Amino acid sequence: MSGTISEATLSEFDRDTAVRLREPGVHDTHLSPGWAIGHALNGGYLLATVGRALGETLPHSDPFTITAHYLSATVPGPAVIRSETVRTGRTLSTGSASLLQAGADGREIERIRVLASYGDLDTVDGDIRTSAEPPAMPPREQCFSAKDNPAGPDAGPEMGKRLDLRLDPATCGWAVGAPSGRGEMRAWFGLADGRDADPLSLLMAVDALPPTAFELGLTGWVPTVELTVHVRARPAPGPLRVSVTTANLAGGFLEEDVEIWDSAGRLVTQSRQLARAKLGEPSGQGFGAGD
Amino acid sequence: MSGTISEATLSEFDRDTAVRLREPGVHDTHLSPGWAIGHALNGGYLLATVGRALGETLPHSDPFTITAHYLSATVPGPAVIRSETVRTGRTLSTGSASLLQAGADGREIERIRVLASYGDLDTVDGDIRTSAEPPAMPPREQCFSAKDNPAGPDAGPEMGKRLDLRLDPATCGWAVGAPSGRGEMRAWFGLADGRDADPLSLLMAVDALPPTAFELGLTGWVPTVELTVHVRARPAPGPLRVSVTTANLAGGFLEEDVEIWDSAGRLVTQSRQLARAKLGEPSGQGFGAGD
Repeated sequence: MSGTISEATLSEFDRDTAVRLREPGVHDTHLSPGWAIGHALNGGYLLATVGRALGETLPHSDPFTITAHYLSATVPGPAVIRSETVRTGRTLSTGSASLLQAGADGREIERIRVLASYGDLDTVDGDIRTSAEPPAMPPREQCFSAKDNPAGPDAGPEMGKRLDLRLDPATCGWAVGAPSGRGEMRAWFGLADGRDADPLSLLMAVDALPPTAFELGLTGWVPTVELTVHVRARPAPGPLRVSVTTANLAGGFLEEDVEIWDSAGRLVTQSRQLARAKLGEPSGQGFGAGD
Repeated sequence: MSGTISEATLSEFDRDTAVRLREPGVHDTHLSPGWAIGHALNGGYLLATVGRALGETLPHSDPFTITAHYLSATVPGPAVIRSETVRTGRTLSTGSASLLQAGADGREIERIRVLASYGDLDTVDGDIRTSAEPPAMPPREQCFSAKDNPAGPDAGPEMGKRLDLRLDPATCGWAVGAPSGRGEMRAWFGLADGRDADPLSLLMAVDALPPTAFELGLTGWVPTVELTVHVRARPAPGPLRVSVTTANLAGGFLEEDVEIWDSAGRLVTQSRQLARAKLGEPSGQGFGAGD
């Protein structure tokens, strides 16, 4: 909602994560129904929106490590983000933020609590010693997009229309009733309107693929309890590769570990979330850590 | 500091992480120099202490997912923990906490900010589908303990005396000037006084091994910026196996991914921390996210 850029030139992602300063530490935003999965707004979309407000509050603008706890179901419409600067330093600054919405009685209800340290990705040194390997995936043109959905090109979640997602066929068995049994999901990732990735869109991308639980043969709802994202480098333009793995489904919870690789072959993001495996409940019903 | 247990019967860990309620949401503690590494108190020890206060504040007692951001160097001596209940739910409750110490002018300085969701590990269901494998390690008697330290049995950090740590020889090359070049560290883990593990001691155990950076050939100080721990099950009595891996040393930062397996072969904890690789600075000099 910057006054210097007209809304028409903004990407869907920038428009829908825009925040407007009301007073120091308080931003208003309008959450778009375009990022819904079932009845719930995507947790990554919400994290990116809060992350934008925090970046405008802290003296550093790039999220280096950001954690969100999801407290109650966020709905499309107005929301307020209240940020607190915890500490400012030369290299990193730490802040906390809350996303709140008015309840039926007008009182604010907290939806998400965030804790993060921000820095400047342009100042990190160039020394790279990554032993991780990019995920082995077929080229984009051999992967599945929304238009290949056996239920029809518009059958997927609303959020899918904002994305250019190409799923690795090896992790798509769930879509035709034949899950692999392995906790893996892989995709080429971009935004549908062609906007290139940046640190804020990476906060959304880590939570944008179908849940690994689908490939584990689970059909229930997998609400995020907590999501932590490390942004390790500014991504190069072009399509991203996203790999999600789950190794420990136990006790009604599971983790999703995500790596995002950019077009230059660099590991730009690592994330992990703890989610509840609410087996048997339809997607989008029920939400939040404490339900 | 419970009045019903005499100090003499407490383990070192329980005594040194004890907290005393001053008023609702405020606990006093006395941080022990016994958990120092160089000049700094171990981040896992501090997290366990804050975690104990949060567990006494929230209606649930077990940390399911807990994140700490390390803000400034904590010193042995008195500290106060201020906790806030963010949300209470049936299955999980979410809270935030700060560890503070008085500065030279008497004003409180924040050392650590924590955000966590707590539950009850006794109520999680028993369904386990873990595809991860325990780390391949030699038996305990073939691993290296502090008494094998080529620099002498008392040459290691003060914290080492609180632990019964048996390092896998395959990840000990650094100790004799021949690091493997792989970002791996593995050990059998126990407390020196024989106290069995519980969810709080797991919060310390994830940060108790020598840094993987040593095996990568780095000799500098590796201060933690942020540490997130998922406790997935109550550990069985007996020695734990701890595996730490680093895949992405880049831009002056690295991640440490930890798995802890209990004596029953169950993956009880997963954690990840983001740390700074302050190459060339001696251990214990400099600290904190923003220095």
